[in-house]
Amino acid sequence: MNLVSDNIAPAHQAVLGALARANSGPARPYGHDEVNARVESMLSEVFEREVAAFLVTTGTAANALSLAQMTPPWGAVIGHEEAHVMHDECGAPEFFTNGAKVVGAPGLDGKLTPESLGSLLGRDFWTPPTHVAPKALTLSQATEAGTVYRAGEVAALAEIAREKGLRVHMDGARFANAVASSGRTPAELTWKAGVEALSFGFTKNGAMAAEAIVLFAPDLVENLAERRKRGGHTWSKGRFVAAQIEALLEGGLWLDLARRANASAAKLALGLEARGLKLAFPVEANEVFVWLPRPLHEALQAQGAAYYVWTSRSVAPARAGRDGETMARLIASFATEDREIDAFISAVGAAPGRTKKASRSPGTPLF
Amino acid sequence: MNLVSDNIAPAHQAVLGALARANSGPARPYGHDEVNARVESMLSEVFEREVAAFLVTTGTAANALSLAQMTPPWGAVIGHEEAHVMHDECGAPEFFTNGAKVVGAPGLDGKLTPESLGSLLGRDFWTPPTHVAPKALTLSQATEAGTVYRAGEVAALAEIAREKGLRVHMDGARFANAVASSGRTPAELTWKAGVEALSFGFTKNGAMAAEAIVLFAPDLVENLAERRKRGGHTWSKGRFVAAQIEALLEGGLWLDLARRANASAAKLALGLEARGLKLAFPVEANEVFVWLPRPLHEALQAQGAAYYVWTSRSVAPARAGRDGETMARLIASFATEDREIDAFISAVGAAPGRTKKASRSPGTPLF
Amino acid sequence: MNLVSDNIAPAHQAVLGALARANSGPARPYGHDEVNARVESMLSEVFEREVAAFLVTTGTAANALSLAQMTPPWGAVIGHEEAHVMHDECGAPEFFTNGAKVVGAPGLDGKLTPESLGSLLGRDFWTPPTHVAPKALTLSQATEAGTVYRAGEVAALAEIAREKGLRVHMDGARFANAVASSGRTPAELTWKAGVEALSFGFTKNGAMAAEAIVLFAPDLVENLAERRKRGGHTWSKGRFVAAQIEALLEGGLWLDLARRANASAAKLALGLEARGLKLAFPVEANEVFVWLPRPLHEALQAQGAAYYVWTSRSVAPARAGRDGETMARLIASFATEDREIDAFISAVGAAPGRTKKASRSPGTPLF
Amino acid sequence: MNLVSDNIAPAHQAVLGALARANSGPARPYGHDEVNARVESMLSEVFEREVAAFLVTTGTAANALSLAQMTPPWGAVIGHEEAHVMHDECGAPEFFTNGAKVVGAPGLDGKLTPESLGSLLGRDFWTPPTHVAPKALTLSQATEAGTVYRAGEVAALAEIAREKGLRVHMDGARFANAVASSGRTPAELTWKAGVEALSFGFTKNGAMAAEAIVLFAPDLVENLAERRKRGGHTWSKGRFVAAQIEALLEGGLWLDLARRANASAAKLALGLEARGLKLAFPVEANEVFVWLPRPLHEALQAQGAAYYVWTSRSVAPARAGRDGETMARLIASFATEDREIDAFISAVGAAPGRTKKASRSPGTPLF
Repeated sequence: MNLVSDNIAPAHQAVLGALARANSGPARPYGHDEVNARVESMLSEVFEREVAAFLVTTGTAANALSLAQMTPPWGAVIGHEEAHVMHDECGAPEFFTNGAKVVGAPGLDGKLTPESLGSLLGRDFWTPPTHVAPKALTLSQATEAGTVYRAGEVAALAEIAREKGLRVHMDGARFANAVASSGRTPAELTWKAGVEALSFGFTKNGAMAAEAIVLFAPDLVENLAERRKRGGHTWSKGRFVAAQIEALLEGGLWLDLARRANASAAKLALGLEARGLKLAFPVEANEVFVWLPRPLHEALQAQGAAYYVWTSRSVAPARAGRDGETMARLIASFATEDREIDAFISAVGAAPGRTKKASRSPGTPLF
Repeated sequence: MNLVSDNIAPAHQAVLGALARANSGPARPYGHDEVNARVESMLSEVFEREVAAFLVTTGTAANALSLAQMTPPWGAVIGHEEAHVMHDECGAPEFFTNGAKVVGAPGLDGKLTPESLGSLLGRDFWTPPTHVAPKALTLSQATEAGTVYRAGEVAALAEIAREKGLRVHMDGARFANAVASSGRTPAELTWKAGVEALSFGFTKNGAMAAEAIVLFAPDLVENLAERRKRGGHTWSKGRFVAAQIEALLEGGLWLDLARRANASAAKLALGLEARGLKLAFPVEANEVFVWLPRPLHEALQAQGAAYYVWTSRSVAPARAGRDGETMARLIASFATEDREIDAFISAVGAAPGRTKKASRSPGTPLF
Repeated sequence: MNLVSDNIAPAHQAVLGALARANSGPARPYGHDEVNARVESMLSEVFEREVAAFLVTTGTAANALSLAQMTPPWGAVIGHEEAHVMHDECGAPEFFTNGAKVVGAPGLDGKLTPESLGSLLGRDFWTPPTHVAPKALTLSQATEAGTVYRAGEVAALAEIAREKGLRVHMDGARFANAVASSGRTPAELTWKAGVEALSFGFTKNGAMAAEAIVLFAPDLVENLAERRKRGGHTWSKGRFVAAQIEALLEGGLWLDLARRANASAAKLALGLEARGLKLAFPVEANEVFVWLPRPLHEALQAQGAAYYVWTSRSVAPARAGRDGETMARLIASFATEDREIDAFISAVGAAPGRTKKASRSPGTPLF
Repeated sequence: MNLVSDNIAPAHQAVLGALARANSGPARPYGHDEVNARVESMLSEVFEREVAAFLVTTGTAANALSLAQMTPPWGAVIGHEEAHVMHDECGAPEFFTNGAKVVGAPGLDGKLTPESLGSLLGRDFWTPPTHVAPKALTLSQATEAGTVYRAGEVAALAEIAREKGLRVHMDGARFANAVASSGRTPAELTWKAGVEALSFGFTKNGAMAAEAIVLFAPDLVENLAERRKRGGHTWSKGRFVAAQIEALLEGGLWLDLARRANASAAKLALGLEARGLKLAFPVEANEVFVWLPRPLHEALQAQGAAYYVWTSRSVAPARAGRDGETMARLIASFATEDREIDAFISAVGAAPGRTKKASRSPGTPLF
């Protein structure tokens, strides 16, 4: 019952197979190989337009490099106050931008809203040269709360950004899960909605370590090769990053794996609600945030269930926990087996004092 | 006849096998897995003492992170003027140190000497706070000229550094080749000679992408985890970096592969000398620098031989090229096949005007 | 009626006199002159203990250099969310710290409270190496809201900081006004309350451009000379910064000037309240924040009154403005003349519709 | 006999007078005052074209800010290997550029030549993204060796820079001395010769602390206000920097003072040569570099003569010192009195063993 994160998963077999296939004879170093060329072309197909792609191996690098292309040192990056880039990258955005500010705005369910974004950008402390100027908006898709921005939501936020002179970045560490959940195309969720650069994550979705910085705005390409090199993120044997991504893009495997992870999360959510537990956020991707009464939390831990205890200021009032309840973050990956989900639900059901049926009908409809 | 670099090589089969073995079930993320623990322990064995190890995936990252641990922004890193960190990392040391100076000193055969180092450190522009202060010495082992520092040479340089308050780093992108060539132990070439941190390279020697920052000075450990994270170099699925290194350390495979590469280079060098060509540097690792008369260079290129044209101010007078000669850098890796070496030598021999035997006895004895 | 800021004021005559006196014959450059030595000694007297002082010429430099001494790039600086260092220095703290985070906490009347500080530090996103670690607390004295921390308040906040491993900095751009208002000694408001470094501002209080970084913690001295030099803040003719400070410290002139500015602000506040206007913050130093009905605001502007329109989330509910009211920030300096204060109060009184007496007794008692 | 530097001098009386005149009533802060406007206009007159000017108070800040406008972090600044920006600013260029490389080229008499510049730029380690790319050329005028680039020399170097895509900066800490010596106009020595930004120094030439960044290339203006603010170099009471420069520009005082300093140096040089001493560099501005036999050096020190002992690799063979000779750097400022020059020459003449006339005709003709 290890639901700690999707990064505890191994790589998908297809990824290992692709590494083996790529492992033959010499290849031009530093990304000038054939696999990289194929991947760039496949990404252009996925996004239904020509894109430029720079491959790296961590989401932190993909995000920080992307944001550094958008933001001068006297600029600010705006994002949700609980986004990964705000807190979980040990200041990588500040490092790669050479000291820009990273400023958070609030919003329920892990999402920025036009109101919260507009309100932050409307404040009076953005006048250069006394103040830094907002230069980039970053949206997490799926969000840190496991929710998914609708295409229209992305477009509305991107439009505000555009009007105020901000470039638009999407942190897609779980972009696959968002696409799979949304029923929309990758294009619709990104450049058609105003996104100019995407950190397209593969690591959590079956790769060993592979992320693509996908650029929709051609002017963002300039000097990114230098930034990547200078950051130590240019692999000499570059084919081995590209091969992972090729394996996952091939035949839409990336979407299959994301759907599998999402389905596991949905099943888990339904099971927990059926046992009377309350979800803190809508379950729209591969993450479940659930309120656990303390005795249940302790019983689960005692049985070896592994998950993060979470806190958030982003929970809607109607989904707030009660006194003594702990929020647990449960993440399913492509590799999570049904029996793990079943075991977790059973463990909840068997816990002392959790005998009654839920009084309301279970289920969080996905959109 | 592709002798462009050792980074055009694929990974060794054992590395792929290790990845497959590691690819099973969940593992603690961010390097807190069992494979990482085993690798740290194996490295301690290799170096005959307890060491701390931080794994990354490029030599640039390993070098820049190591040097940043040693040098404040108002410090200077001293190295050979033709070392990789001087020019070939797009300013990564400056980036990771937040703007320290990287200052080169000359020396024949790619090596710093006590005289050149002492002379540089003895100059009068090192008085803080007007000037930056030298804080780190970095030695490349093997050097950019394919030569190898003897243990005594390392010790002499490290002693000067220690006296002047500099920490000592070794850029070991080709450390395996140096160890294999030297007949000395890893310990003798590093901490026993005064080295405090080593960028231990595996990528050029059979890995896909794996480098270990090996720390012999315990005080250098502090905050390196933060620097690595902030630089985007902490893999979530960390087992896949460690597994590569484990495969290469296991049973001394790393030394076997380095010996193979060195032997290919030695064979190549002998063959070229036997055909009357002159070497620009002693061949002590897996690199051969040879002077090619222009017609020969052109004939080789026409036949598809691939190598870098090189320039250096580090050539000893006795090994200088003649007018119209081009220096070619030829690198052998563990994966270079004998037939490639033979083909190259044959191509040289068959070139127009290169019919005569060398008038002097061939051979550069390895030490 | 120019109440825009205390930085529109000229320098005090005593400062010009001191510059003239210092302007004779050669002097050792870079701060190694006699005036600097005297100032360091005078500052030690002012603070009743030995201190180290580094003189610069802007508050931004003083703050950013001080914070850089306390915070590594992977650290965070904590301050009030409306403090000057948060927004008004164009990212200077980020620049000088090489990319640390600057994180704001809320608090009424421009002051951090033990609750808001404790709550921020208690959050779960401070675990290295994933997250940056809070390393410095900065308190503005007087605050951006023109209020003054009591010695006990400083001590309580500094104690929390100390427990959590944060160093304590005070931004004293208006430290003189705070001391004059508080009836406490400089020592009591700083090191006796746990402050380890002070940006002691003289520019707003009669200097041309002079600020002293006063260090109470000896370990903070190391490398500050390098940081200052590297930041371009080491004057070659250093006597001319020191002479300004000497003139102001001499005979307690700095406190006289601050008292004069404070008295002007108090008089203004009383006059405005007597005319029925409501203050947004207690008037405790030389700043008055007052709610102006829009017609009054427009009438004042039309008459050439100059001041900033302000916004703040730090206003106590009881002092909130009504719909249609604008907050005006009015600052008095040592050079503000009584007739300017009188003229402003008269202009308010004469404004259309402001005929009625205040219904409550005027006056904000200073503490 | 204090000839240590021109920064030991006081300010000129006219500068103090101007400060007193500026010290009246309120003024718009942060450089938006009338004196700043007048200075920008006067500078446009001095340079016979519209220029933009950003005032700061140290040469280090002026240089570092200018270079940061020209060079991205993955760029290189090229200058003479003994220039001030190379060594004497504690890494300020690296700090303000966020980690660019500062690379020196050799040249006699402190001057870059088309050959040395061309040779450096022609090397093969400038290929991005592996290598940083040269982005700025900086020329010191006058040089660190007290020599002066002719307008044609500047133009030849700037032309090479332009061809290779480098912007051209001039470090004019002693620009006044160079103009006074050259008989050319400020325009001819700068933008007419291809200079795009000038650090125009006033501090060594009579100011307390004042330097103007003069921009001839309009595109270099963008974001310099942010960089200056972020660096802590935007004075709130900005009139007091501008007033110093106004006083010196008025009526050409800056050139008068520079001529006086140059004349003192010329007189000193003639006197020393007449006493048989050899100059290490041509005396073309206000600095004299002279070889002192050790007994003479010791005798002078014993008599309290104050100067720097210097070393340089830039001395022409014909001007090299003999064994046992020490190079002394003697600097005259506008405030150096004739009797100091006379006293120094007398002290040399009276020294034991310095008996008679020079065997060759004295005098270094100024150009």
